[in-house]
Amino acid sequence: MVQERQLVEKITRALLPQRAASSRLKLGIGDDAAVISLGSRTEWVLSCDTFLENVHFRLKTHPPDSVGYKALARATSDLAAMGATPRFFLLTLALPAGAAGALAGWSFVGRGFSHDKTSAPDSGALALEVPSESWLNAFLKGMARASRELGITIIGGDTTQSRTVFISITVLGEIAPGHALTRCGARPGDIIYVSGKLGRAQLGLELVLRGHARNHQVRALVQPHLYPKIQIALGSWLAQHRTAASAMDLSDGLSTDLGRLCAASQVGAKIYASKIPSVTIPPAAARYLGKPKLDPLQLALHGGEDYELLFTVSSRQAKKLNGAPGAAALTAIGEITRKRELILVASNGREAPLKSQGWDPFR
Amino acid sequence: MVQERQLVEKITRALLPQRAASSRLKLGIGDDAAVISLGSRTEWVLSCDTFLENVHFRLKTHPPDSVGYKALARATSDLAAMGATPRFFLLTLALPAGAAGALAGWSFVGRGFSHDKTSAPDSGALALEVPSESWLNAFLKGMARASRELGITIIGGDTTQSRTVFISITVLGEIAPGHALTRCGARPGDIIYVSGKLGRAQLGLELVLRGHARNHQVRALVQPHLYPKIQIALGSWLAQHRTAASAMDLSDGLSTDLGRLCAASQVGAKIYASKIPSVTIPPAAARYLGKPKLDPLQLALHGGEDYELLFTVSSRQAKKLNGAPGAAALTAIGEITRKRELILVASNGREAPLKSQGWDPFR
Repeated sequence: MVQERQLVEKITRALLPQRAASSRLKLGIGDDAAVISLGSRTEWVLSCDTFLENVHFRLKTHPPDSVGYKALARATSDLAAMGATPRFFLLTLALPAGAAGALAGWSFVGRGFSHDKTSAPDSGALALEVPSESWLNAFLKGMARASRELGITIIGGDTTQSRTVFISITVLGEIAPGHALTRCGARPGDIIYVSGKLGRAQLGLELVLRGHARNHQVRALVQPHLYPKIQIALGSWLAQHRTAASAMDLSDGLSTDLGRLCAASQVGAKIYASKIPSVTIPPAAARYLGKPKLDPLQLALHGGEDYELLFTVSSRQAKKLNGAPGAAALTAIGEITRKRELILVASNGREAPLKSQGWDPFR
Repeated sequence: MVQERQLVEKITRALLPQRAASSRLKLGIGDDAAVISLGSRTEWVLSCDTFLENVHFRLKTHPPDSVGYKALARATSDLAAMGATPRFFLLTLALPAGAAGALAGWSFVGRGFSHDKTSAPDSGALALEVPSESWLNAFLKGMARASRELGITIIGGDTTQSRTVFISITVLGEIAPGHALTRCGARPGDIIYVSGKLGRAQLGLELVLRGHARNHQVRALVQPHLYPKIQIALGSWLAQHRTAASAMDLSDGLSTDLGRLCAASQVGAKIYASKIPSVTIPPAAARYLGKPKLDPLQLALHGGEDYELLFTVSSRQAKKLNGAPGAAALTAIGEITRKRELILVASNGREAPLKSQGWDPFR
């Protein structure tokens, strides 16, 4: 078993044998994004994110416009996590164009498709068909909407052919020098905050996996999974006002991401089950979910893709948060500790270690 | 049939409904790379490039260190094509980690591998194994060598799981404001130059596809395909001295890339078969290539991945080229014409239209 963290460490060791001593590189591998400085009034924040068919989405269950929307939204969330203002992106798009009409409309893909493995890959001789206009159009429409809403402009990209849909997006954002929010600034005594309600995206995913992406009865509940809202204004505010000691976005679940933040800051954390703002599961939705019943706290602790912000604030600074955008939706869920362990305090007051059970693509 | 060009146009139309009027974006979609300005002494050049198993390389035939080397080299070639100095890159790496030991050493992959399609993709429940240490180590070693040779430093990336190896690299380079070499500056009367000998990479590919990647008898001949040399010094010199009116790198074959340069500049071109510096096929190699015999001119015209530079220079400026790095390896192959067509003049003086027969991932 290789974990994503181990793979990243391996890549870092292999490609950065000695830490490159570039005065322009303010922050390299290990945070939500890299930061480079050009000696001008702004620093640039860069990140890339991958969105893969059958890993992150399914053609059968996910509307194509949500694939386009979410691919760009989740990439941009890394900029929000740094407090940066999104500016530009590059899109890598690999599409199946194979023999069996892989992309001939999303209602057809359930049939599966074959691929001529015997074709010489570099010969240009692959017999290719048109990727479905309608899928691609809807995909791009969703991405264009995200682009408008997030204020981020495409400046380039690369297209190629592949067996399944592969999307990789590099995002660039801007920030005042030295203001980037990092994962490594949490100090013992800091208060831990999250924005929004957690577990909403996982609840949406559970409904989508059960075939309810287009069920109007649960429309509002699947939106957070299909069209996540990104916390740009909040991230930007926290960076501008230097309020947060550390921050990251919740992409892989609180239990996993809090562990990453604590590891980067070399601290621990204690959080309280009773304080965690968990998703509400309306009775109307329960009947689409079946048994066993989903536990809102478990969704909130381990569900991925909420793209809310997780950040820490020193107790002195906490009052300032009243001025933050969406201040009413911010919740203090615990505190940073010196001892390097994650503790969950149950509603009955009992303490237990919190294990990382969020999303890891290699688990 | 959708061609790459059409797909790029479609993406541009969908995501850039009106040309974004950002004063910072000096050059967007359509050239080798994007250029952004920050009002400081340099402009930044960005590009991304994809390198896919079974499309651009095969695990069975390509040594893993060459996959790592070439993935980064070919991405960086887009910076060379702009005249930029390579600085930073972000690496997206998706690896198979499936049930059948997909990456358990490159000598094993010939067995093929299966993938548990029934696993819930988002559940984190995929049963994953270690990607082969040895493949990954060699891959990263090759990439680290390219990183050193090209002077480009990793600053971030993204890793995930996929059925086949998927590599996407975003590169950033630096250039003096306004000096970037673009495709759109060619003017009628310009002399067309190429660096190096063309068709070498295609000859190498032909040998590799016949199983000779590690055959010491043809070692020198497969190198250009496996470990392409990138024309950073030449590109940088052309930009710095403002010698080239237009430039691009030869990634998809002269017949295809010259067409792109002419389209971007709204001109045509006439090139002479007798002047094209074609690869030499030594008799010793011929016996590994079999029949039908490869034609060096065809390899030079249509073979991809040479990563040499194609550029145009006004006749007034041509003399300056004597001072360029590797000046002896530069060849004038024809001239830019007003009439928007590509003409190949055969050795016997006969003129015929030159059709784009290079690499297009969607053809």
